Amino acid sequence: MDGARPGRKAVAANTSRLRRGERMIAIAHTLQSQPYRVHRLSAFAETLGAAKSTLSEDVASLRRVFERFGLGRIETLSGAAGGVRFVPQRDPSRIRRLAEELAAKLSSPGRLLPGGFLYTSDLLSTPAVVEQIGEAFATYFADRGPDVVLAMEVKGIPVAFMTARAFNVPLVTIRRAGRVTEGPAVTVNYVSGSSRLLQQMTLPLRAVREGQRVLFVDDFVRGGGTARGVFDLMREFRAEVVGVGAFVASREPKHKLVDDFFALLVFEGTDRRGQPVVRPSDQVLAIR
Amino acid sequence: MDGARPGRKAVAANTSRLRRGERMIAIAHTLQSQPYRVHRLSAFAETLGAAKSTLSEDVASLRRVFERFGLGRIETLSGAAGGVRFVPQRDPSRIRRLAEELAAKLSSPGRLLPGGFLYTSDLLSTPAVVEQIGEAFATYFADRGPDVVLAMEVKGIPVAFMTARAFNVPLVTIRRAGRVTEGPAVTVNYVSGSSRLLQQMTLPLRAVREGQRVLFVDDFVRGGGTARGVFDLMREFRAEVVGVGAFVASREPKHKLVDDFFALLVFEGTDRRGQPVVRPSDQVLAIR
Repeated sequence: MDGARPGRKAVAANTSRLRRGERMIAIAHTLQSQPYRVHRLSAFAETLGAAKSTLSEDVASLRRVFERFGLGRIETLSGAAGGVRFVPQRDPSRIRRLAEELAAKLSSPGRLLPGGFLYTSDLLSTPAVVEQIGEAFATYFADRGPDVVLAMEVKGIPVAFMTARAFNVPLVTIRRAGRVTEGPAVTVNYVSGSSRLLQQMTLPLRAVREGQRVLFVDDFVRGGGTARGVFDLMREFRAEVVGVGAFVASREPKHKLVDDFFALLVFEGTDRRGQPVVRPSDQVLAIR
Repeated sequence: MDGARPGRKAVAANTSRLRRGERMIAIAHTLQSQPYRVHRLSAFAETLGAAKSTLSEDVASLRRVFERFGLGRIETLSGAAGGVRFVPQRDPSRIRRLAEELAAKLSSPGRLLPGGFLYTSDLLSTPAVVEQIGEAFATYFADRGPDVVLAMEVKGIPVAFMTARAFNVPLVTIRRAGRVTEGPAVTVNYVSGSSRLLQQMTLPLRAVREGQRVLFVDDFVRGGGTARGVFDLMREFRAEVVGVGAFVASREPKHKLVDDFFALLVFEGTDRRGQPVVRPSDQVLAIR
């Protein structure tokens, strides 16, 4: 699927007078549109009509500017499978700044909804914000190497999707039972960690393959029942849950049904004026 | 919200020896991360430590390479509100090629699910594909200038999200009644255009404001009942539906409940061997 990338022929006809800056833009776009994928210099040599030594210098220059501006990491892999790849990587200080900015926005009176819910939908519907949250997850979970990112319908889908995009892996959405029209499906029961209600989650059989490494990303963790259900569901698929990420985790209940998850923000509860208190998680503050 | 972009101070300290290619990468990233937003050259002059005349040349060079590689359009706006902005814009030939590639993938026997459904979930869960579909919608609807993109849960959310990202506007998700925890909501009934069943759709009151221009994007149009429901719902919000986009429209039923929509692909039905037939829509073939 390369409909969005310049065809080789089209590019070759156009590269007669490409300057370094122009080559760098073309290389950056190719790398960024497919994170983690390895591209050989010889392929760039062909499409951009430049010598490999020239392209090596272009990539070195690109690597420096990506580092300087915190746009991610450009890695060179040597050997038979060698080449260049782009790894989305946020600087820890930027993740902290993002978490602080979002925490400040969420700590305001209008944010508390009936039932004690925190209103996050406006942030989770703003593409530029969601992109940054997804990249923060991709940075934190970089060494887990997921094959698939799992979302639970509905609100967590955009964040999970942008995490999947940063890893360049598919997003698979779990649905609450009932409406699946994608063939045979597996359904498990789970108990909500906060409401203690019995619920169901469903995933089409062909959505996840045996042995795959899955990262579950959601917008909110309260009791952890959903995440626990995801572990049960993945056991049926013989797939491995390699991480759980949440945009916001509530402080209460203290005892969650999963121990090991990463949250960007913590919803502490309300202060004396009834205003929500949200702050960056200890995990974010500890990222080095 | 600029947690992901280099802070001015951090950049200024690092720009002593920036070359044109490096400035071009930094400018490209700033423009692309916020499509349609106008950036003044004076802001770049400050963050990149270069003269405005130099930056003008950088932008001209950037514009050329974006054009050459079909990465979108860089526009210069003059006057008091002047500056530079990035408009995601796909070349018509690339949109056609994308539609052809996707149609070929969908025209295979394994794609037909019980009930006559077409299996599209794998494509709609692949970030690089969804990004291209979203940009195709953004290209087609560019002159409609939406303030908001609307999605209907669940499968259409990623495509709608990537369309919203290309327009740099919020994504708002309509839910089938029941589970909304975002405060007061408006619910309307609608009749499914294919099954003729009465259904409900719900949107939080604060999700769309009076007078906003909304673009509805979905994964599949069959009878058009959902789209018709969206028109009714938006009337309650006193908002205007400026466009309806669908990844796939089914040929049958011929009479849809909305006339004016754009589909990337058409699901014609099945051939004699029971294999689904999917092709680029006439609208895609007519894009100039």
